[in-house]
Amino acid sequence: MKIILKKIIFLLLLLFIGCENRNPTNLGKIALSYQQESKKIIVATLNDSVGFNRVAELCDTFGPRLSGSENLEKAILWIMQEMKKDGIENVRAEEVMVPKWVRGEESAKMLKPWPKNLAMLGLGGSIGTKSNGITAKVIAVSSFEELATRSNEVKGNIVLFNVPFDTYSNTVKYRVRGAIEASKHGAVASLVRSVGTFSMNTPHTGNSSYEDGVKKIPHAAITIEDAAMIGRILENGQDVEINLKMEAQNYPDVLSHNLIGEIVGSEFPDQIIVIGGHIDSWDVGQGAMDDAGGCVAAWNVLRILKDLNIRPKRTIRLVLWTNEENGLRGANSYRNKYLDKLKDHILAIESDAGVFKPSGFGFTGPDESLNILQDIGTLLKPIQSGVITKGGGGADIGPIMKEGVPGMGLTVESEKYFWYHHTAADTWDKLNIQEFNQCVATMAVMSFVVADMDIRLPK
Amino acid sequence: MKIILKKIIFLLLLLFIGCENRNPTNLGKIALSYQQESKKIIVATLNDSVGFNRVAELCDTFGPRLSGSENLEKAILWIMQEMKKDGIENVRAEEVMVPKWVRGEESAKMLKPWPKNLAMLGLGGSIGTKSNGITAKVIAVSSFEELATRSNEVKGNIVLFNVPFDTYSNTVKYRVRGAIEASKHGAVASLVRSVGTFSMNTPHTGNSSYEDGVKKIPHAAITIEDAAMIGRILENGQDVEINLKMEAQNYPDVLSHNLIGEIVGSEFPDQIIVIGGHIDSWDVGQGAMDDAGGCVAAWNVLRILKDLNIRPKRTIRLVLWTNEENGLRGANSYRNKYLDKLKDHILAIESDAGVFKPSGFGFTGPDESLNILQDIGTLLKPIQSGVITKGGGGADIGPIMKEGVPGMGLTVESEKYFWYHHTAADTWDKLNIQEFNQCVATMAVMSFVVADMDIRLPK
Repeated sequence: MKIILKKIIFLLLLLFIGCENRNPTNLGKIALSYQQESKKIIVATLNDSVGFNRVAELCDTFGPRLSGSENLEKAILWIMQEMKKDGIENVRAEEVMVPKWVRGEESAKMLKPWPKNLAMLGLGGSIGTKSNGITAKVIAVSSFEELATRSNEVKGNIVLFNVPFDTYSNTVKYRVRGAIEASKHGAVASLVRSVGTFSMNTPHTGNSSYEDGVKKIPHAAITIEDAAMIGRILENGQDVEINLKMEAQNYPDVLSHNLIGEIVGSEFPDQIIVIGGHIDSWDVGQGAMDDAGGCVAAWNVLRILKDLNIRPKRTIRLVLWTNEENGLRGANSYRNKYLDKLKDHILAIESDAGVFKPSGFGFTGPDESLNILQDIGTLLKPIQSGVITKGGGGADIGPIMKEGVPGMGLTVESEKYFWYHHTAADTWDKLNIQEFNQCVATMAVMSFVVADMDIRLPK
Repeated sequence: MKIILKKIIFLLLLLFIGCENRNPTNLGKIALSYQQESKKIIVATLNDSVGFNRVAELCDTFGPRLSGSENLEKAILWIMQEMKKDGIENVRAEEVMVPKWVRGEESAKMLKPWPKNLAMLGLGGSIGTKSNGITAKVIAVSSFEELATRSNEVKGNIVLFNVPFDTYSNTVKYRVRGAIEASKHGAVASLVRSVGTFSMNTPHTGNSSYEDGVKKIPHAAITIEDAAMIGRILENGQDVEINLKMEAQNYPDVLSHNLIGEIVGSEFPDQIIVIGGHIDSWDVGQGAMDDAGGCVAAWNVLRILKDLNIRPKRTIRLVLWTNEENGLRGANSYRNKYLDKLKDHILAIESDAGVFKPSGFGFTGPDESLNILQDIGTLLKPIQSGVITKGGGGADIGPIMKEGVPGMGLTVESEKYFWYHHTAADTWDKLNIQEFNQCVATMAVMSFVVADMDIRLPK
């Protein structure tokens, strides 16, 4: 039944693409010349299952891929081998030194007013505790300002930043700087309410920082439920005491790799369209949405173009950056290595918001280029993913965008991204093959046309 | 802004109730005589916050309330004191001996093909393992039939019942009987894919059984994500090895209590309308939806009638049963204790499906009574919770329903119940005050009219 339904939807889609072709006024000027290739690419992609299954194989074979782990390097090696099998060109792993942080065993237990094991995740980069942990009373604050106001209550206690999710950037600062600010006021450890938009008692990890001259204290995330409960208990005038144990340790940097592969351009091989995601992940779950899906989607763009024997005039370069999560060393290393080639980097496309249903791209670059990309976007109407908005990019293309390379991030339905982000629930089963393939098709059409069109995208 | 919106909705609701009154043809024959009281009850309930906050206080002060735990008895004592303060009559705790099972520390680690801590919960009643656990290969099956077919592969291994959720009754059998069936074929332990409809790497606990003459083996739930992953890894031909450690122990029965309170009927005090839920819960999360919410909602029915000074002709009896989760001892004890009074038990109402948005009740009893209850249900149209369907009841009213007492279960939006059911995510923050109050209003109007109407509900 499901298969019949899928076939019907597929036939309707073909019909719709057909209609679009018979009514070319819907298409932009540049798009008009790419109707046939675009249709071929979309149809091939929506029928594909190799890419989607590769996400499962990557996730199930290697597990999470934290920088500095064996998992990550094994995963990179496997992808490299598979890319070569696909016939992708100039496949290479480029060396990058990355931080190595190891979580070890960890726990948080509420001891008072009643005993409860708190689901928790230490935050990346945090130091550990002594072996019997830190036992202290909790003071909960809802902002750095409140922390400062209540400074005299902090000494010797654990600070809990009990801050509900607002926007990611507004909320994540408590994860990133929480230990620094709490330590300045004399806290012995700091906890954050997990940075997420929905919780099934789900702790979210993520990166955190220390500052020179401020004593390092252990820093961990507890769940939204437990943070809210502790907040309520404290408001009711009861004391809360927690024992926090963390074996977390930072080690010297180790070797990792950015992974690169290309379809070399037929006319302007030195002009590069970069497309990619980050191959590292946090050390829980499978890093499926963040960012195995994005990596394999970008990889699949090259594989499908190769299979269709479509070679654009310019080079499409897949880059799977390492160490996005806790250092951005891969992105910075790429920028450094290719600094003198960036003038010929035409466009950089990143997928790092999950492979949910795509709507298009957010673009940062000249308006003239935005117009061109919106023209190309009309080719994506059949799959409703051709909306190109102003503003956008990504963490890994950030360093080259700063050097003047126009950049764009794939935009997708965002509702559930911060349900799974940096949690044990970021697993392959959360992906949907149709949505994944739509992400691939969207990036494939966009990168191909920009790589092939007669004009060079203005910087 | 939110408050203004709430006020507008509330005023519209009052207007709607007003319209209903001016158009009495919408009301049933019995309902017609109860317009005024019904309106008073609904308005008072929808404006209440005492009940909702009591769910938080119950959950945050005592935590989860497993049979045999101190938490449970402390919670029962607190409710008893509060009920007396409310002026509820004949408040009493009736002794019930209940099983005592203690989880202890527990863990499941996948050792091969790569190391991963598996989120897990031992199942209620399970025995523990030796202190270094059980390490064995995993065989995954999708049914008892497949287990029988592959019997020769089971000996010395851990059986994983990797069965996707179908209906609760179709799926829960693997949790309840999994250890028995796996042991019959020589397994050393058994695991089930958690019985839930959505997972954020969320293990679900619940009760399980052993059978005389079949060797007891440890039995635990892992998450949907991990079960599915292990299934895929095995299908790809790789071995999976797990180390399972559980300290779980069964102890001799201990004393617990059913908690009872009444509004004594003015004319027929011996005719009883029972209303309630179960005060015990599993030992994780807060047992907020299952079933603190149902208990406090039923309790609030009596408090609000008391506050409104509404005394029906018959007695409304609140019963908070103990030990629903792993024994049903409270329900059976109530049946035994009141066996000779059951002829005058007019109706039993249970709330144990969460306090989500209510739609009405499912009823088991004579059609003649169903018609009467549907008549009364018309009073609940203003809050869209007056649909009375055929068939329904609940675990705790089951034993008295078997003795001929008509029974009904509150029906609520069911989508998310099995997201939280028996998990660490069943916490107070999942409740919504409007929906909770609608549950209270629905049960209050129904129980009051059945208790007060001139005719006696036929058996």
